[in-house]
Amino acid sequence: MNSKTKPRIPSGFYELLPGDQIAFNKMVDKIRSTYELFGFVPIETPAVEFTEILLAKGGGETEKQIYRLNKEGDDLSLHFDLTVPLARYVSEHFKELVFPFRRYQIQKVWRGERNQKGRFREFYQCDIDVIGTDSILADAEMIATTYRVFKNLGIDNFTVRTSNRKIFSGFLFFLGLEEKNSDILRIIDKLEKQGAQEITQQLSKIGVEGDQVASILNFVEFNGTAQEMFKKLDSLNIDNDLFKRGRTELWGLINAVQKFNVPEKYWKIDLSIARGLDYYTGTVYETTLNDFPEVGSICSGGRYDDLTSYYTKEKLSGVGVSIGLTRLFSKLKELKIFEKEKSTVSSVLIAILDEKYNDNCLSLAMKFRDNNINTEVYLNSGKLDRQIKYADKLGIPFVVLVGEDEIRDNKLSLKNMKTGQQVISSTDEAIKIIKDEQQIK
Amino acid sequence: MNSKTKPRIPSGFYELLPGDQIAFNKMVDKIRSTYELFGFVPIETPAVEFTEILLAKGGGETEKQIYRLNKEGDDLSLHFDLTVPLARYVSEHFKELVFPFRRYQIQKVWRGERNQKGRFREFYQCDIDVIGTDSILADAEMIATTYRVFKNLGIDNFTVRTSNRKIFSGFLFFLGLEEKNSDILRIIDKLEKQGAQEITQQLSKIGVEGDQVASILNFVEFNGTAQEMFKKLDSLNIDNDLFKRGRTELWGLINAVQKFNVPEKYWKIDLSIARGLDYYTGTVYETTLNDFPEVGSICSGGRYDDLTSYYTKEKLSGVGVSIGLTRLFSKLKELKIFEKEKSTVSSVLIAILDEKYNDNCLSLAMKFRDNNINTEVYLNSGKLDRQIKYADKLGIPFVVLVGEDEIRDNKLSLKNMKTGQQVISSTDEAIKIIKDEQQIK
Repeated sequence: MNSKTKPRIPSGFYELLPGDQIAFNKMVDKIRSTYELFGFVPIETPAVEFTEILLAKGGGETEKQIYRLNKEGDDLSLHFDLTVPLARYVSEHFKELVFPFRRYQIQKVWRGERNQKGRFREFYQCDIDVIGTDSILADAEMIATTYRVFKNLGIDNFTVRTSNRKIFSGFLFFLGLEEKNSDILRIIDKLEKQGAQEITQQLSKIGVEGDQVASILNFVEFNGTAQEMFKKLDSLNIDNDLFKRGRTELWGLINAVQKFNVPEKYWKIDLSIARGLDYYTGTVYETTLNDFPEVGSICSGGRYDDLTSYYTKEKLSGVGVSIGLTRLFSKLKELKIFEKEKSTVSSVLIAILDEKYNDNCLSLAMKFRDNNINTEVYLNSGKLDRQIKYADKLGIPFVVLVGEDEIRDNKLSLKNMKTGQQVISSTDEAIKIIKDEQQIK
Repeated sequence: MNSKTKPRIPSGFYELLPGDQIAFNKMVDKIRSTYELFGFVPIETPAVEFTEILLAKGGGETEKQIYRLNKEGDDLSLHFDLTVPLARYVSEHFKELVFPFRRYQIQKVWRGERNQKGRFREFYQCDIDVIGTDSILADAEMIATTYRVFKNLGIDNFTVRTSNRKIFSGFLFFLGLEEKNSDILRIIDKLEKQGAQEITQQLSKIGVEGDQVASILNFVEFNGTAQEMFKKLDSLNIDNDLFKRGRTELWGLINAVQKFNVPEKYWKIDLSIARGLDYYTGTVYETTLNDFPEVGSICSGGRYDDLTSYYTKEKLSGVGVSIGLTRLFSKLKELKIFEKEKSTVSSVLIAILDEKYNDNCLSLAMKFRDNNINTEVYLNSGKLDRQIKYADKLGIPFVVLVGEDEIRDNKLSLKNMKTGQQVISSTDEAIKIIKDEQQIK
């Protein structure tokens, strides 16, 4: 006989026991229904794309991260985000779609990164995008949707932080630093993680002078209400077109967010939000849990001028955000923020006291199910004790017992597992009790 | 400038436009809720497993099919079904699970088969299994659940065909063919596809004699009600223990299925159901659409004595079935069985007649959303015509218009896109009209 293969999953991959899986699925359902509340339609793309599609933008870091499939024939890889597949999808189906196209997409993505603690190689992203519009209202919808998603998830103390890349870039142009624009953005993006001292050194290293560094740090550390922020921006008297356009866009964004009734406590302007990715050209977002800043951004994104340039001549601008759900869930679990879910979806267990009562038990189960009550029959031989323990361990709230007496009287015994109380009732009464308790319609 | 990369997906992969995706997701939701109605809990495993886990049973056909990942370090592959990952999961988490463990799992699987027409390389499987029980009631639950799933999907003319491997194997033993048992099972499994003549030739080729071939064909072509089938089986007077055990199990199964109130028209005993896979040891199932037999089995499975033998010393028997959803969906779409879904999830579009009405439109959108109405704002500049056309193309049932007059009177205009009728109403009245029409609670 062969020795056993040790059952385990690779590091960086994540799976859950049933109770946690139920909690995870509830989060997905809430995100889905909130996205639909805002009119986003679902799409799903294959896990696999042609490698040349994924790398069209140019390899670099991405090429190192992707999981390529080792099979003769087509050169295929697992997607590493949902944005590149969206660009391919929109380009491919351009003529069949209606624009502005607002879609959501909740799928796993894969990144074969060197495995650091807390880094996932497989994780869920929950993306929304509106493609084919320059309207600033679309940018505001992102904040309104993000706000509502987290509220619906029962998370309250969060802040959507937003800025506009044109403002910061315009400011750098004004300082005469236009050639170093993307390098500086990349460095500033790490300000929160690495601190001002480290950032100062890095800026010096790429040739930013001392007084320029001071100006930059002063600029990104501006802080205050929206009104105060605009006052500060205006007080700089920056005569640069890009800066002015960014200011106008941010002004439009903030006005629309207010009209969407997103309370001020849930968003703020933060000029240090740079986002590492090259393709953002306007509004950018990050979202943080105020009690747990170390978790980092749980929902990020921005506006891009041309999503599909690698695949089609159609120029499609748009805006989107993405929730990194696996990481968010694992952190919330670590922080024990959620109530623990039961390990069952059943409202009632039909116990089997003796094989000779099978007939009654099975048709009873179907009766409960006909009434929309999640029901299971105990599917093993075993004494009543063991069956009760089974219900108890899983957290099934009711157990139905049927024996000689119950069958004779056309009744059943219903045990409430929380109170321990046991009542004799008709099937219809039992159905009513369970539905009331479990709030089943 | 680079030339464009042609946007396309590899053959054997499948993706849908939004209207079809909405229909697909509705099917998944119905399968999920029905599985939960029967008390199955959700789990999800990584898309990727250690290759040695996937191939523990021995390579062969499987090894040729799996997609291996091409990356230094761990030898990883995409899973090709959900049964091997389940076996690994149950072995790994044995101490944390409660048995009998009833789980459902709806995920994509990947098979790098030579691409034939209609063969998918990536597809959804929807599996249920009960692990850790020998009870025949578990086998009956599979039929009860399958029945309810297809009814809930709006499919009526289907038959769950069931048999027990022990019966056929016992019969072969009785004929003195025990050494050729698995070869014969594999050949008979193709009877429906290939026809009696081809099967006869194949049986002869492996040394089954003429009268034995006749007996086998006669046996698997038995046909009739459950009662008639048992009569025929008994009339053979087969004195073989395996056969007798199989007969007892099948008897128990059929009785339980009847007690679960599954009408006779939805199931039948079919002794030709052999299932190709080695690990089935008792009950086996296949499900066919009676109007479209060419589609093949849309839900198959069976009972296994020892699922986890490659990973743990714990011996875990169980039973399960799997729906091949991608194939089923693509066939139903081909056959145009489903009503076409709209390409939207929105109940209402807020049109924007002029930028100066933005404020009213945005807060109106949030008011509708607060009332659980899926709502979108038109996120582009454009004349009213274009906005109406947008709603029409997507199938959004209502459009809200707000202009000078409406704002002055604190009203809105509500256009019903189906009837073309337009009424002036208060926000609350509009909410009521939309909710009634769209049956929103």
